[in-house]
Amino acid sequence: MPTKIIESVPNFSEGRRPEVVQAIVAAVRGASGGARVLDISSDADHNRSVLTLAGNESEVRASILRLFEAALEHIDLRTHQGEHPRLGAVDVVPFVPVREATMADCVRLARAIGEEVASRFHLPVFLYEEAASAEHRRNLAEIRKGEFEGLSRKMSDPLWAPDFGPAQPHPSAGAAVIGAREFLIAFNVNLNTPDVQIADRIARAIRHSSGGLRYCKAMGVALSERRIAQVSINMVNFKKTPLHRVVEMIKSEAARYGVAVVGSEIVGLVPNDALLSAAEFYLRLESFHVSQVLENRLADPGA
Amino acid sequence: MPTKIIESVPNFSEGRRPEVVQAIVAAVRGASGGARVLDISSDADHNRSVLTLAGNESEVRASILRLFEAALEHIDLRTHQGEHPRLGAVDVVPFVPVREATMADCVRLARAIGEEVASRFHLPVFLYEEAASAEHRRNLAEIRKGEFEGLSRKMSDPLWAPDFGPAQPHPSAGAAVIGAREFLIAFNVNLNTPDVQIADRIARAIRHSSGGLRYCKAMGVALSERRIAQVSINMVNFKKTPLHRVVEMIKSEAARYGVAVVGSEIVGLVPNDALLSAAEFYLRLESFHVSQVLENRLADPGA
Repeated sequence: MPTKIIESVPNFSEGRRPEVVQAIVAAVRGASGGARVLDISSDADHNRSVLTLAGNESEVRASILRLFEAALEHIDLRTHQGEHPRLGAVDVVPFVPVREATMADCVRLARAIGEEVASRFHLPVFLYEEAASAEHRRNLAEIRKGEFEGLSRKMSDPLWAPDFGPAQPHPSAGAAVIGAREFLIAFNVNLNTPDVQIADRIARAIRHSSGGLRYCKAMGVALSERRIAQVSINMVNFKKTPLHRVVEMIKSEAARYGVAVVGSEIVGLVPNDALLSAAEFYLRLESFHVSQVLENRLADPGA
Repeated sequence: MPTKIIESVPNFSEGRRPEVVQAIVAAVRGASGGARVLDISSDADHNRSVLTLAGNESEVRASILRLFEAALEHIDLRTHQGEHPRLGAVDVVPFVPVREATMADCVRLARAIGEEVASRFHLPVFLYEEAASAEHRRNLAEIRKGEFEGLSRKMSDPLWAPDFGPAQPHPSAGAAVIGAREFLIAFNVNLNTPDVQIADRIARAIRHSSGGLRYCKAMGVALSERRIAQVSINMVNFKKTPLHRVVEMIKSEAARYGVAVVGSEIVGLVPNDALLSAAEFYLRLESFHVSQVLENRLADPGA
């Protein structure tokens, strides 16, 4: 049996000074016994970077601790500006079950690392999503409301006491939001119209917040260069709300405006199972099992 | 980089005496430095068994040599009967590129193992498919025509001299057909009609031999227990004739008879890429790359 693999996608508040991003990434890569760095992406408008790491619990823990150490050394939120809302130097750290690991493993890891980060770096830590300690603290956007600048006042409300660490923000690093969630697939669907209002209407039809699919977030976006509109989607639980259901619903809603789907794209990484499940649906496979996939059999002949 | 993995799917002429099948499989499993046995299937009507092995070149070679040794010890074609055409005790041994390996690797391996088998076991060996030495010897059915019983006469024709080994059949083991081919996917599509003639007409429409898709073989089959008809398909090159094209063509042909596809099944193993390519088609993915699959990135972070 392969060992448990957990993914972590920490976001930190620097995307403009390449030398600082490089120094932080180098620290994470150099963490002794650390996880593998699968992806790095920085955005200057957002002034923010996103790392994708994967490894077992101890490897992920080593990398995340090193990330906090390096980020707190280089980032001072008192002078930070960017379009993306943020609360801390290391703003948010989700743990995601990827292979053999369960959500319970990730919740446990989020709590353990949250506690360790709070005590080592004197940093308030909020737990979110599946690791949240109360229902009103599940949603990242709610926790982040008010941002770094409003944090001191927010934390004076007992409803927003941190889960771990001091009762006041860290002077330069604010607070960190640490939690556990399912794998998030960033998936965009392109329409053969430049009319972003149509993309917006379709987004409202498919997304959970306005009556659509339970694990789908979506908004309309204009792709000015290609002169087309796009439905930009976050699939926050591809096991319960699968890709094919979103695509079929978009096709049906688009047809109502005389518009067609011209293509789609996956941004970043996608779990193999999310694509196998689309193949299974469209090929109408009966009683298919992932142990029939040659590569799985090669990895585990007894499966 | 992972090492080259080659699959081999040897067919041997015993499917009725379980103790003989077990002895041969045990010999193959026990081959020192041998390949992994991924699958075994025996058929009493056919009086034939099929093994699926995978490993690097040296592992596959060790297992195949051991298979010939054990099969020649236990099988005597002079007393063998079965519904499936056969020429030898070990009847056919294809090598299939699976991971990092190329077709050229498999052709080279088929020739090297063919030569070694011929000299060690005094057995005539015919090369077939991609390893064939002449166009009229590519097709397995052509080589096998006349079967074991007609082999001595067939080999007296210079067109059918073996590629390696003696000019006459082995007395008890006949001859072996060894070659290289693409991965074969056994894929069945079920219709909501018990009328096998409709399945037959659809099979004729989609298969290469009667004007259909280049790498598709198909026939109609009645599933008496389920009271439905099935189009039973061998996809002999899923990269050039992909699954989705076959499914869409079957749907369209079936509609002409007022019939619908109720399901499909993959028999045995399927390469992950065959399913990803179906997902890519149906989800209309633009510029998708397999390095975006999380599991591939985990296996090779530099991809």
